[in-house]
Amino acid sequence: MYFVTYQYNAFSEGGILTEDTKKVLPITTLGKLMGIKLPERLIDFIPLATDDLLSKISNIIAQNPNLGIDLGLVKLLAPIPKPPRNIFCLGKNYADHAKEIKNIPSMGDVPESPIYFSKLPTSITGPDTVILSHAKTTKQIDYEAELAIIIGKEGLNISKNEAEDYIFGYTIANDITARDLQKKHSQWYKGKSLDTFCPLGPVIVHKNNLPIPFDLELTCRVNGEVRQHSHTGNMIFDIPTIISDLSQGMTLLPGDIILTGTPAGVGIAQNPPQFLQHGDVIETEIEKIGILKNIIE
Amino acid sequence: MYFVTYQYNAFSEGGILTEDTKKVLPITTLGKLMGIKLPERLIDFIPLATDDLLSKISNIIAQNPNLGIDLGLVKLLAPIPKPPRNIFCLGKNYADHAKEIKNIPSMGDVPESPIYFSKLPTSITGPDTVILSHAKTTKQIDYEAELAIIIGKEGLNISKNEAEDYIFGYTIANDITARDLQKKHSQWYKGKSLDTFCPLGPVIVHKNNLPIPFDLELTCRVNGEVRQHSHTGNMIFDIPTIISDLSQGMTLLPGDIILTGTPAGVGIAQNPPQFLQHGDVIETEIEKIGILKNIIE
Repeated sequence: MYFVTYQYNAFSEGGILTEDTKKVLPITTLGKLMGIKLPERLIDFIPLATDDLLSKISNIIAQNPNLGIDLGLVKLLAPIPKPPRNIFCLGKNYADHAKEIKNIPSMGDVPESPIYFSKLPTSITGPDTVILSHAKTTKQIDYEAELAIIIGKEGLNISKNEAEDYIFGYTIANDITARDLQKKHSQWYKGKSLDTFCPLGPVIVHKNNLPIPFDLELTCRVNGEVRQHSHTGNMIFDIPTIISDLSQGMTLLPGDIILTGTPAGVGIAQNPPQFLQHGDVIETEIEKIGILKNIIE
Repeated sequence: MYFVTYQYNAFSEGGILTEDTKKVLPITTLGKLMGIKLPERLIDFIPLATDDLLSKISNIIAQNPNLGIDLGLVKLLAPIPKPPRNIFCLGKNYADHAKEIKNIPSMGDVPESPIYFSKLPTSITGPDTVILSHAKTTKQIDYEAELAIIIGKEGLNISKNEAEDYIFGYTIANDITARDLQKKHSQWYKGKSLDTFCPLGPVIVHKNNLPIPFDLELTCRVNGEVRQHSHTGNMIFDIPTIISDLSQGMTLLPGDIILTGTPAGVGIAQNPPQFLQHGDVIETEIEKIGILKNIIE
């Protein structure tokens, strides 16, 4: 099942795609057809999304083949445009990427434990939008294609075995980074958090469509040229390990977004380094999820 | 003017203290007396708090001397119990603290640029509450007494001269830290973000009570013993510099909380290191703001 947040007639709300992925059904409309009240925002629906409810929704969609808004008529937004706290991120979670940057000051080598940092909610932007170049603040904007996990329910001290139970689904992100600020401020937070530095979407694919373990092709193209190409199976710390380790002593909440790290090929590791420029088109693609396209401006 | 969030009869809402600081008036009640609707939550009141509105509220309070709930009857909570995004923090913003930890691995020396990181909203706890020891996750809990800035209105690329316009007020925080996790995960985020690791409050003092520049005595006591004692005027990067620098390319929002760093005397820098233990009482005091008291459990 595919979940989106979309704008239609100046109103935005959560929706579910039809099986052919050509139309979107508002979650509120699906609720009305089932005689229950469902929330407008996708993030408020996430903690309610039991297998039983999703199965009933599938049936309602199948029974009403003429319902839905043509996807061509709506504007897809980031599936979670305003999460209630920062985006969790992993650093250097692919060995080839850790190695390509190990000689860059303050970057270090392949980590023995997961490296966690965060990006501000105001860094989120949707598919087919502009990533601001912030020309006065940075001269070194870089891309990092990443698989994003969406947490489905509250959990603390989660075991690896139970980790998948706490997942709602997966989407695509690009952990846009100002390399000069990342270095200048020592901790990575500010260089990762400028406005629009986290394109996200377009869809969240439910975990039932992608049972763990999976190994998805992940690609980043800049103006059509492939810069990053790997598989999610190459992560150093896999998804159950991330969720279990992150949740020790720290409560995860429904709607939390976890970016799982990027493989080799980032701009700063090119020889010479190639940072993003005004007009560059970035396509972040993950097999079975989709393509996230943005432009630098 | 002093702002709080308090619980009374199992209901929590924002309030303003009377001039003698002995009673609290619900913000909603003050609104009714003025014939306007004011929000229940302090964070929703913050962006509305113009000098004009605060002046009218002062008059209403003065005209109704018998109104208000005795402070002894309410439970004060963190003034912003659930901020809409992570807490901003500065690392090593007092030179004596930067020097005392410079020989500890991954800590570095006195910074040339501000070091920013964040703590999760779920780390917030109120005055007179328990800080969880998370005994399975960490063996090295440490204290860091800090002045917290509360942002009053949205701003991007703010100049130093304008910085004070964007402040709502100030409160007290303790940036509780798991030193072992801070080191293990390389970036500081996780070691700073365990549940209950950010005691905050009890009051927010409005900026009109503390015009910039100010130099407030700041003290941290553990079981009555003074461990940290400095003045906020000793910050390396002062408040206008922090707000201006942080807001370059990154929009600040009303209700954002910024912890401004801690002076020398933390537990890991003692010889031998002295970490917090079950039952330890931590008092964080800032002149003209108050005392924040918590216990490790």
